[in-house]
Amino acid sequence: MDETLLHQLLNSVARGQTPVADAMARLRHLAVEDIGCAQIDHHRSLRKGFPEVIFGQGKTGEQIVGIMTRMIEQERVVLATRVEAHKADYITSRIEGARYHPDARMVVWSKGEIAVRGKGTILVLCAGTSDIPVAKEAYLTARAMGNPVEQIYDVGVAGIHRLFRYRRQVESASVLIVVAGMEGALPSVVAGMVGRPVIAVPTSVGYGASMGGLTALFAMLNSCSSNVAVVNIDNGFGAGYFAATINQPRQSSL
Amino acid sequence: MDETLLHQLLNSVARGQTPVADAMARLRHLAVEDIGCAQIDHHRSLRKGFPEVIFGQGKTGEQIVGIMTRMIEQERVVLATRVEAHKADYITSRIEGARYHPDARMVVWSKGEIAVRGKGTILVLCAGTSDIPVAKEAYLTARAMGNPVEQIYDVGVAGIHRLFRYRRQVESASVLIVVAGMEGALPSVVAGMVGRPVIAVPTSVGYGASMGGLTALFAMLNSCSSNVAVVNIDNGFGAGYFAATINQPRQSSL
Amino acid sequence: MDETLLHQLLNSVARGQTPVADAMARLRHLAVEDIGCAQIDHHRSLRKGFPEVIFGQGKTGEQIVGIMTRMIEQERVVLATRVEAHKADYITSRIEGARYHPDARMVVWSKGEIAVRGKGTILVLCAGTSDIPVAKEAYLTARAMGNPVEQIYDVGVAGIHRLFRYRRQVESASVLIVVAGMEGALPSVVAGMVGRPVIAVPTSVGYGASMGGLTALFAMLNSCSSNVAVVNIDNGFGAGYFAATINQPRQSSL
Amino acid sequence: MDETLLHQLLNSVARGQTPVADAMARLRHLAVEDIGCAQIDHHRSLRKGFPEVIFGQGKTGEQIVGIMTRMIEQERVVLATRVEAHKADYITSRIEGARYHPDARMVVWSKGEIAVRGKGTILVLCAGTSDIPVAKEAYLTARAMGNPVEQIYDVGVAGIHRLFRYRRQVESASVLIVVAGMEGALPSVVAGMVGRPVIAVPTSVGYGASMGGLTALFAMLNSCSSNVAVVNIDNGFGAGYFAATINQPRQSSL
Amino acid sequence: MDETLLHQLLNSVARGQTPVADAMARLRHLAVEDIGCAQIDHHRSLRKGFPEVIFGQGKTGEQIVGIMTRMIEQERVVLATRVEAHKADYITSRIEGARYHPDARMVVWSKGEIAVRGKGTILVLCAGTSDIPVAKEAYLTARAMGNPVEQIYDVGVAGIHRLFRYRRQVESASVLIVVAGMEGALPSVVAGMVGRPVIAVPTSVGYGASMGGLTALFAMLNSCSSNVAVVNIDNGFGAGYFAATINQPRQSSL
Amino acid sequence: MDETLLHQLLNSVARGQTPVADAMARLRHLAVEDIGCAQIDHHRSLRKGFPEVIFGQGKTGEQIVGIMTRMIEQERVVLATRVEAHKADYITSRIEGARYHPDARMVVWSKGEIAVRGKGTILVLCAGTSDIPVAKEAYLTARAMGNPVEQIYDVGVAGIHRLFRYRRQVESASVLIVVAGMEGALPSVVAGMVGRPVIAVPTSVGYGASMGGLTALFAMLNSCSSNVAVVNIDNGFGAGYFAATINQPRQSSL
Amino acid sequence: MDETLLHQLLNSVARGQTPVADAMARLRHLAVEDIGCAQIDHHRSLRKGFPEVIFGQGKTGEQIVGIMTRMIEQERVVLATRVEAHKADYITSRIEGARYHPDARMVVWSKGEIAVRGKGTILVLCAGTSDIPVAKEAYLTARAMGNPVEQIYDVGVAGIHRLFRYRRQVESASVLIVVAGMEGALPSVVAGMVGRPVIAVPTSVGYGASMGGLTALFAMLNSCSSNVAVVNIDNGFGAGYFAATINQPRQSSL
Amino acid sequence: MDETLLHQLLNSVARGQTPVADAMARLRHLAVEDIGCAQIDHHRSLRKGFPEVIFGQGKTGEQIVGIMTRMIEQERVVLATRVEAHKADYITSRIEGARYHPDARMVVWSKGEIAVRGKGTILVLCAGTSDIPVAKEAYLTARAMGNPVEQIYDVGVAGIHRLFRYRRQVESASVLIVVAGMEGALPSVVAGMVGRPVIAVPTSVGYGASMGGLTALFAMLNSCSSNVAVVNIDNGFGAGYFAATINQPRQSSL
Repeated sequence: MDETLLHQLLNSVARGQTPVADAMARLRHLAVEDIGCAQIDHHRSLRKGFPEVIFGQGKTGEQIVGIMTRMIEQERVVLATRVEAHKADYITSRIEGARYHPDARMVVWSKGEIAVRGKGTILVLCAGTSDIPVAKEAYLTARAMGNPVEQIYDVGVAGIHRLFRYRRQVESASVLIVVAGMEGALPSVVAGMVGRPVIAVPTSVGYGASMGGLTALFAMLNSCSSNVAVVNIDNGFGAGYFAATINQPRQSSL
Repeated sequence: MDETLLHQLLNSVARGQTPVADAMARLRHLAVEDIGCAQIDHHRSLRKGFPEVIFGQGKTGEQIVGIMTRMIEQERVVLATRVEAHKADYITSRIEGARYHPDARMVVWSKGEIAVRGKGTILVLCAGTSDIPVAKEAYLTARAMGNPVEQIYDVGVAGIHRLFRYRRQVESASVLIVVAGMEGALPSVVAGMVGRPVIAVPTSVGYGASMGGLTALFAMLNSCSSNVAVVNIDNGFGAGYFAATINQPRQSSL
Repeated sequence: MDETLLHQLLNSVARGQTPVADAMARLRHLAVEDIGCAQIDHHRSLRKGFPEVIFGQGKTGEQIVGIMTRMIEQERVVLATRVEAHKADYITSRIEGARYHPDARMVVWSKGEIAVRGKGTILVLCAGTSDIPVAKEAYLTARAMGNPVEQIYDVGVAGIHRLFRYRRQVESASVLIVVAGMEGALPSVVAGMVGRPVIAVPTSVGYGASMGGLTALFAMLNSCSSNVAVVNIDNGFGAGYFAATINQPRQSSL
Repeated sequence: MDETLLHQLLNSVARGQTPVADAMARLRHLAVEDIGCAQIDHHRSLRKGFPEVIFGQGKTGEQIVGIMTRMIEQERVVLATRVEAHKADYITSRIEGARYHPDARMVVWSKGEIAVRGKGTILVLCAGTSDIPVAKEAYLTARAMGNPVEQIYDVGVAGIHRLFRYRRQVESASVLIVVAGMEGALPSVVAGMVGRPVIAVPTSVGYGASMGGLTALFAMLNSCSSNVAVVNIDNGFGAGYFAATINQPRQSSL
Repeated sequence: MDETLLHQLLNSVARGQTPVADAMARLRHLAVEDIGCAQIDHHRSLRKGFPEVIFGQGKTGEQIVGIMTRMIEQERVVLATRVEAHKADYITSRIEGARYHPDARMVVWSKGEIAVRGKGTILVLCAGTSDIPVAKEAYLTARAMGNPVEQIYDVGVAGIHRLFRYRRQVESASVLIVVAGMEGALPSVVAGMVGRPVIAVPTSVGYGASMGGLTALFAMLNSCSSNVAVVNIDNGFGAGYFAATINQPRQSSL
Repeated sequence: MDETLLHQLLNSVARGQTPVADAMARLRHLAVEDIGCAQIDHHRSLRKGFPEVIFGQGKTGEQIVGIMTRMIEQERVVLATRVEAHKADYITSRIEGARYHPDARMVVWSKGEIAVRGKGTILVLCAGTSDIPVAKEAYLTARAMGNPVEQIYDVGVAGIHRLFRYRRQVESASVLIVVAGMEGALPSVVAGMVGRPVIAVPTSVGYGASMGGLTALFAMLNSCSSNVAVVNIDNGFGAGYFAATINQPRQSSL
Repeated sequence: MDETLLHQLLNSVARGQTPVADAMARLRHLAVEDIGCAQIDHHRSLRKGFPEVIFGQGKTGEQIVGIMTRMIEQERVVLATRVEAHKADYITSRIEGARYHPDARMVVWSKGEIAVRGKGTILVLCAGTSDIPVAKEAYLTARAMGNPVEQIYDVGVAGIHRLFRYRRQVESASVLIVVAGMEGALPSVVAGMVGRPVIAVPTSVGYGASMGGLTALFAMLNSCSSNVAVVNIDNGFGAGYFAATINQPRQSSL
Repeated sequence: MDETLLHQLLNSVARGQTPVADAMARLRHLAVEDIGCAQIDHHRSLRKGFPEVIFGQGKTGEQIVGIMTRMIEQERVVLATRVEAHKADYITSRIEGARYHPDARMVVWSKGEIAVRGKGTILVLCAGTSDIPVAKEAYLTARAMGNPVEQIYDVGVAGIHRLFRYRRQVESASVLIVVAGMEGALPSVVAGMVGRPVIAVPTSVGYGASMGGLTALFAMLNSCSSNVAVVNIDNGFGAGYFAATINQPRQSSL
């Protein structure tokens, strides 16, 4: 219940149109409705500027279709992450306009073209070819949330000159997402080149003492550059989402 | 060497004023000079929008005074972090205008009042009273970098209603820094209330299985809210710095 | 051997009816007989108030049927946990009255309706939909042990207002079981709302630095609320069992 | 704001005595006022049945005296944990009636004798002499919260017969707290003897691969007895508090 | 080269029958021949009292048959551990007299009955039914090495009275092997009952924070009983072998 | 209560000298007395062949003197481990005949010369000079328990030839204790040379990734030699004790 | 762009043949071109002395064939590591001259015989038969990079005399690669015998507390021999590559 | 015993001057004497090309002086590492010519100037000023072993252009030692620039999730550059030693 509705209700009580008992019944849970409410989806869009995203892992194709169908009625963009290919076939054959991105394992549905609202550009970089799926997830998420997004892949620190070829592009980005596995060194190097926020995404790529991504994660947390913050291992979606919260104009209420 | 200098050099060669051999000598290290240069501090301010910050841990008071003295000639604000009290006495008695904040263990020097450039407000929250030193470090850093900063302390999740009293303030912040030790739950709750970026700072507060802050760190990385990114344990400075990179207007070249 | 038997034996010795050698032979193992005995199952019910529960993992369907058959003769309720679906088919087709709960992977058999003995209500909450299987295991266990049990699902801290809608229900529970994965923050928030005991159950839900549930486990152990105790990762059964030991009236000898 | 106040307010609006704008102002923050409130301490006692406990670690003697002085005005019992001896001298010389327990490092103040409200007995056991400080902290906490408490020390599993001497006492307890370091085996053995809830407290006693208490912690979480729940390493206070929430009569609103 | 051969060589040099150059050539590598030798298998039996044991994991059935065939010509007993069932079929169909023990996943071949050389009895205990495979591996190994071995299964600490029924058997054993997963408490309890050496074997049985057996391992290393030593997780073979080295009479050169 | 006492009691009942009620009072706790008893020390010596050893860490000099004084009345040998030098001065000045070994940080008291009971020799080896304190603790413990003990120090694998100089001594030992830090490789090498049991003791010597001894511990648990079992990090006492349980003649009831 | 090209460009500007604007366009990215360049592969061979190696894991057979085909046009040797057998069939049937080594899971292609450039010999040793695949990977890599390579397998420390038989070969090697799992002790022993560099490769062979190779890794890092450096777990390729960088003559520009 | 001595002995036997029994006594331990010998230091110099280095940690100043005095008689260079300042004063005042390097905590003594034998140059780089002590230890060790050594400090990846200024120096080095804490990224970047061997040294510099250097260690082991090998945390000495084994000419018998 937003302020308008509350205003109407109180006016209605003042005019004697709504009995006190009825108003009490509605206001009793105002505590809840004032923060969120029973129609969760609507309030979340209002409160956070973007609807809930479906975490596909552990859900059946049927369940995802069910949730998407309900959300499509209310939202302009609906995302499902961590969707395996065989579920995606089921979903895209049932949800018109839903598109599957196999690299990123995401399903994206939107009402027409997604409008671009962000002023600056979000730049997604990744260190190696094995990091691309996570980078793509970040790319698609930020794009679906209305941002201009660019990507540069395979610029790891073992041949750091490859990165420097893109210096202008790096320096002109508004927010940077840097995806890397193994030693996780790329975010530090990129952050040393710019003054804008750098979101580091460790990946579980590697073997031996890569510890399923913990090595890259800890390396990024210990970055000697201060304009670096970190999200969970393989969490491309979170990085894209976080970048969008930075890039979107404040007044757009995101 | 910036573009203007390069232009002058090439013109000079074209006019025969600079011999090819001399130009080669200068251009040989262009690779380096083009990215950074010998006078590191100047370039860093230009490139990143803020000068280097002195990491006080492991440095003597004399060393810190030496570095600050040199930096003061070139910069408008100079920070030193992790400075123990006895070193601070030495520093503030020798650097005029330097002020020590014992809670945050920071020394701040500025040429006059620090101008406020950021448009939005950075809000620093912390869960318990033991988290205050880290929160203060974040506060002072963001403030020194020219941002309006507010702070709300002791609003941990064991009495979550305390947080809700500040809902308006939470919702109107541009960037939020949330500091918590123990179970590290506060950033998730805060991030669920807003759509703006939340920077989570785990602290080493606690005992037993708090693992020196790793428990809070991992909890924050696993936040079920997507608008959360994380910095290293006890890294209030990094959180303040990262928040500033988000909050500052793009065109101010930060 | 209880006190009555000991009394008889000593009287018999005093009267010369039992030779000293015979008495010695019987008393030699009194230590053992006094603590437990040969008919393990009966004694366990007497000693602990509830029969052994079959841990289905690693046992064949045949083995589980064999054990259940023997137990059914002596007990009013028999539980088997961690039973995969294909084994469950085998079991329910052979044990009349056995019912399989696929969510919780439990088989429950009871002699007629399970009587409700507990006075208070055990409330099971969980943070996300992926935590439901563990929550169900807790629910069914507490129910099978004769307690009134209620459940509230999907009230994680990323939208904490959802939880507050159930405040009355939360506040009136006698014991609370709170199941959560990822950052494991829900038990702290719930425990901050009530004065009754809260049993926290970490789940292995999540990825990256969720460490198979260790992150949630450590977070819960570090809860800033004092009325929280923790059971093992994914151990819904243990939580339900422990809650029942709290909720049952003392005199019922549970 | 409780229901009575809400009723008055709405009636006042209905009667035209309170303008809609004023009512809106009051209701806007209802969410917060309905859950908690400004006078935190009072509400905590009401909500949780026991006032906040002062965590002494990292606080100066002056700070602890300050907090205790304020609390004493409102509460019947005030506890401070983890208080080193030199601070305790300062505190007890300033707070009349405050008593220091050096073993448990606790300061306890109460308005007269602490009344015994719990019906059953809480029994605290510990495995070795080095575990006694943690056991004492549990003992004093449970006692201060109004429970009859008994204690049995030095009954570790390396001489398990020592435990069996106390079988009657063990079996008649309402709640059991079992404190152990090293291999952490005692809670499993005790829990196997009774049907009542057992709260296991790992201690950091040991060396080598005792890992600062993690070995005992993990052992207790993996207990093969189901009536065991665990609190953090060395958290005797938490165990005593949790035991009290179990033992206190429901209606006493604890 | 043993002492006899060395004596012959030196005599031969002394008599002028072997030139110094030839003797030098032979003696140059004496270092090696003196410690071991080219015919490894023979020397190992002589040196260690038991031939090498084939570690089946990662070897094909063909490879195991090949190695066994060569060893059978020289040894009286040949063991292969960690042999999966399908390989065992292949092996037993090709090696006459080889017998597969599916529980322990071992293949045992012996020339006639294995003679019993050990004077005392090795007793193998295990805590739960899931620990039986590891216990069986210990049993078969110790038996194959010529020891009288007895076994007691399912005497975990959750019902410690079950163990006490076997007190005489426990007290009369010469060496004890105690196998346990989960909290790994049984070895401490058993070791507290006897003065003889107890070999603890942690198993990977359990879930959640059992950490693949590390919890039991660390618990056993921290045993508060001093007559406990530990072998690797699931290493029943090592425990049986180590027990045999203790139990065999010194003069038999094992 | 041992068998003789039980026999007397029953005879006394049979003769009417002891009333049934009195006998019951004494026998009521027979369960306990049959396994251990109230006078712990006496029974432990009977049951385990060696009295309790005082763990000095965390005890004051006064406490140690108190315990030793009581034990000296009943035992022939009394040991206290982990005793710092300043406590040792206090102890040796008060307990006549107590001798402090500063290397091993042990206090040893014995009634006259300690008799040698063991038939074979226990050999203690250590890898580096920093491992000597732990090796000495093992040496003194085994010696105090009546065994012939020899020692060879500084024979680490970085110069493995040093070890081979002592081959005869190594091969003729009955039990071997091998102490090593850093990579913990020595026990594997030694165990490869002999067929007798080798007890490996990891030490916390090293830096960096030595992990406080965990590296050596894990290396020893993974020894490719099968006649190796392991005790806790720095647990020289445990190794000496365990070796003694192996070496002592069975009939001596150790 | 190398120095020659830069010289031509500047001369061209000096002669007025290249306008300043054009020269600026080319020089603007000199930073990048001076370090590396657009045709990455060529530059890498020049810069590092050996072309990139294809990491086969996670790539399809088609992708590997595509990359190899392009590289074959420019290079004399092309390697692909971590190639499963079914992909290898596809590759070798399409790339003429490509040969698959199933043990090492490597595909090697070379233009004619690989020339031997290294002066010294690289010796690869491994501890057990399960370590052979990793050892082979090291062998083939070093061989493909133009080095004489020898190998000695199955010389683990449990029978250290086996190693000493090869002492001359060990002592005459220029660089040694030592591969070992389990306790990882072999590199220390080998390094103690020679003064040349020893590269230690931990393998994930083992079970229980071998921790997937971490035990061997940490043991090797803690080697008490100083001429040891370590590569990642199972990284035979890296060891072979690193050995080649040591062994190749400096002037060959490797 | 070297070959000359063996030759003399055999000749003496051949001439009848040495009885067979005496020769046997001497040759019995030839195995040992042939590999190393009683005068350890001499043989080590012969075998490994450099004498033992004194590990100062845990040794008293007196002990170090004692060892140095003996070594000085036989060696040309003697090193002691990890020597605290107060011990160094004692040592340098007693050993003439011994010089203390406080940064590196090393004492170096040499007979006259240390001759330079290595052909190439060893280059030591470090990332931050806090890494300098470890870098110095590497520098001094390599220098003391007769190598030309250069050093470049404070070229971490947060301002990677600083490194590129030294490109020529980096590219012309024969062996590179790269010291870094925090995220440990520098070795990967440096190794990407050259084809020569890079020895990575992690340092324990940092806080929070730097895990005492483990983060840097794991990052370096996962380097995406193949010409990197790693030594233990803070092990500057080992890196310098290892570099020297690479750089020294083979024939110099190092």
